[in-house]
Amino acid sequence: MTPLLKRYLETTSRRVEAVLETLLRPKAEEPAAIRRAMRYSLFAGGKRLRPSLVAAAAECCGSQASRVLKTGAALEMIHTYSLIHDDLPAMDDDDLRRGKPTNHKVFGEAVAILAGDGLLTLAFEAAAANARQCGLSGPATAELIRVIAVGAGTSGMVGGQVADLQAEKWRSRKSRGQAGRLLEYIHRHKTAALIVASLDAGVILAEGSSSRRRALRAYGEAIGLAFQIADDILDVVGDKKKLGKRGSDAKNQKLTHVSLYGLQRARTQAIALADAAHGHLRPFGPRAQMLHDLADYIVTRDR
Amino acid sequence: MTPLLKRYLETTSRRVEAVLETLLRPKAEEPAAIRRAMRYSLFAGGKRLRPSLVAAAAECCGSQASRVLKTGAALEMIHTYSLIHDDLPAMDDDDLRRGKPTNHKVFGEAVAILAGDGLLTLAFEAAAANARQCGLSGPATAELIRVIAVGAGTSGMVGGQVADLQAEKWRSRKSRGQAGRLLEYIHRHKTAALIVASLDAGVILAEGSSSRRRALRAYGEAIGLAFQIADDILDVVGDKKKLGKRGSDAKNQKLTHVSLYGLQRARTQAIALADAAHGHLRPFGPRAQMLHDLADYIVTRDR
Repeated sequence: MTPLLKRYLETTSRRVEAVLETLLRPKAEEPAAIRRAMRYSLFAGGKRLRPSLVAAAAECCGSQASRVLKTGAALEMIHTYSLIHDDLPAMDDDDLRRGKPTNHKVFGEAVAILAGDGLLTLAFEAAAANARQCGLSGPATAELIRVIAVGAGTSGMVGGQVADLQAEKWRSRKSRGQAGRLLEYIHRHKTAALIVASLDAGVILAEGSSSRRRALRAYGEAIGLAFQIADDILDVVGDKKKLGKRGSDAKNQKLTHVSLYGLQRARTQAIALADAAHGHLRPFGPRAQMLHDLADYIVTRDR
Repeated sequence: MTPLLKRYLETTSRRVEAVLETLLRPKAEEPAAIRRAMRYSLFAGGKRLRPSLVAAAAECCGSQASRVLKTGAALEMIHTYSLIHDDLPAMDDDDLRRGKPTNHKVFGEAVAILAGDGLLTLAFEAAAANARQCGLSGPATAELIRVIAVGAGTSGMVGGQVADLQAEKWRSRKSRGQAGRLLEYIHRHKTAALIVASLDAGVILAEGSSSRRRALRAYGEAIGLAFQIADDILDVVGDKKKLGKRGSDAKNQKLTHVSLYGLQRARTQAIALADAAHGHLRPFGPRAQMLHDLADYIVTRDR
């Protein structure tokens, strides 16, 4: 990780965590249990990648990171809700996440489901509040909500999760060609869609042009796919302790880039995607340095 | 049910179902399973109470029902998602809903959880699209999203669900006074909050005054509480076949108005709330007739 990227992620993390702290303040109107469960997963030490993408996209369009932190927090809440629901016994049935017991292991399944629901709902509230603070017009505010909903919903992340469930035990049911198409769908939706939405949200809040939206969406698609491939690779070769989970993909015999194409080809594909990502950043010049560094980091990280 | 109310609910149902049909069209970008699961619960024959409230509130402020149907559809999707998640084995563990097998019984738990997530997400997309169609300003668009999120989230419906879970086996753990306060909290949040949000959304879309917002919110609070009390009563005395479920509250020994106060006092409270609701409608004159009829219907309905 370059010093620039490291500093950027650390700064954004610190700032977005302060915003999350405010958004997740205990309220008299709420049962304490739900707030505790939401905070448990939200403050479990993620890299805050999505908030950093919102911030970097806004900066690429001449705005400031500090103006878009609430939407960064919204995207982080959506990411966190998806992890909570994904870990449930009915889904991936994971006991550990980032080295800690998963949400339902601590708070029970019912509260974990509702904590996810609460985070998803609060995310839209936060994004709408951010649009108001930025003085966005009616159509731009509606577009911000639309972009986040599409990235998170059945045409995006939720669709990817469903396809991922269906991919279990794929070896017995699919030809290699079918499996490849299914895998492409999963990667494009489960991870890339919300990354694309994060970048797009940053541009919308900064009132950037539609050509900038297109360029950063294409960049997001590329790093999103690369990220998921790298994740598949890490699940096989990563240091289990660093990763904080036990290679559950392999354990569950899941369809992954590695199980389908092998390690070497998966690595080659990830690097080609990082190259494509660099290309999409060309119009932004030196302002996009952090996003360049991020594309490289995604395919070389070890956890 | 008065002929006016019957006609209003039928007309709104027909119209909002046409809108839902469009919003829930199969898309190439989606796995078919998730769409099927979402449609299964969405088209299971609800009364479409929340869309009717959005429409009636907008009409009370001089707008037209046809202009707010997408937001009506959004509130109905949020209501439906809450039923799907509420029926899950980890929550109420219900096998039947409106006389049909519950979502997870048909599609499995994983897809049921994701179908709920998908409906909640799509709801915000639909509301934002409606705000754009109505030409709302930036702040009004943000306010629409905020009101829906607060009604659905941890300060509203989700908070009520959490409290409801905690109320199980209340007899052994709570004094009568504590139980009464918990019950009040549950009713105010689990049902009333989303009803209040529906009415408020209708006023916002119609660009009604803040005094109209306050009056209709107070009306919504009253009928929301009355609705929940009536539900508790129906769970005990309702015709089991008409109700389509098997008196699960009694079976689960849940904290309800009836279990705490007895049938007679519960009925008296519901009627007093309906009277209060009528009072809040006074400023609207004859335009609010449907809402008057609804307040009466809620406390006299038999299913």
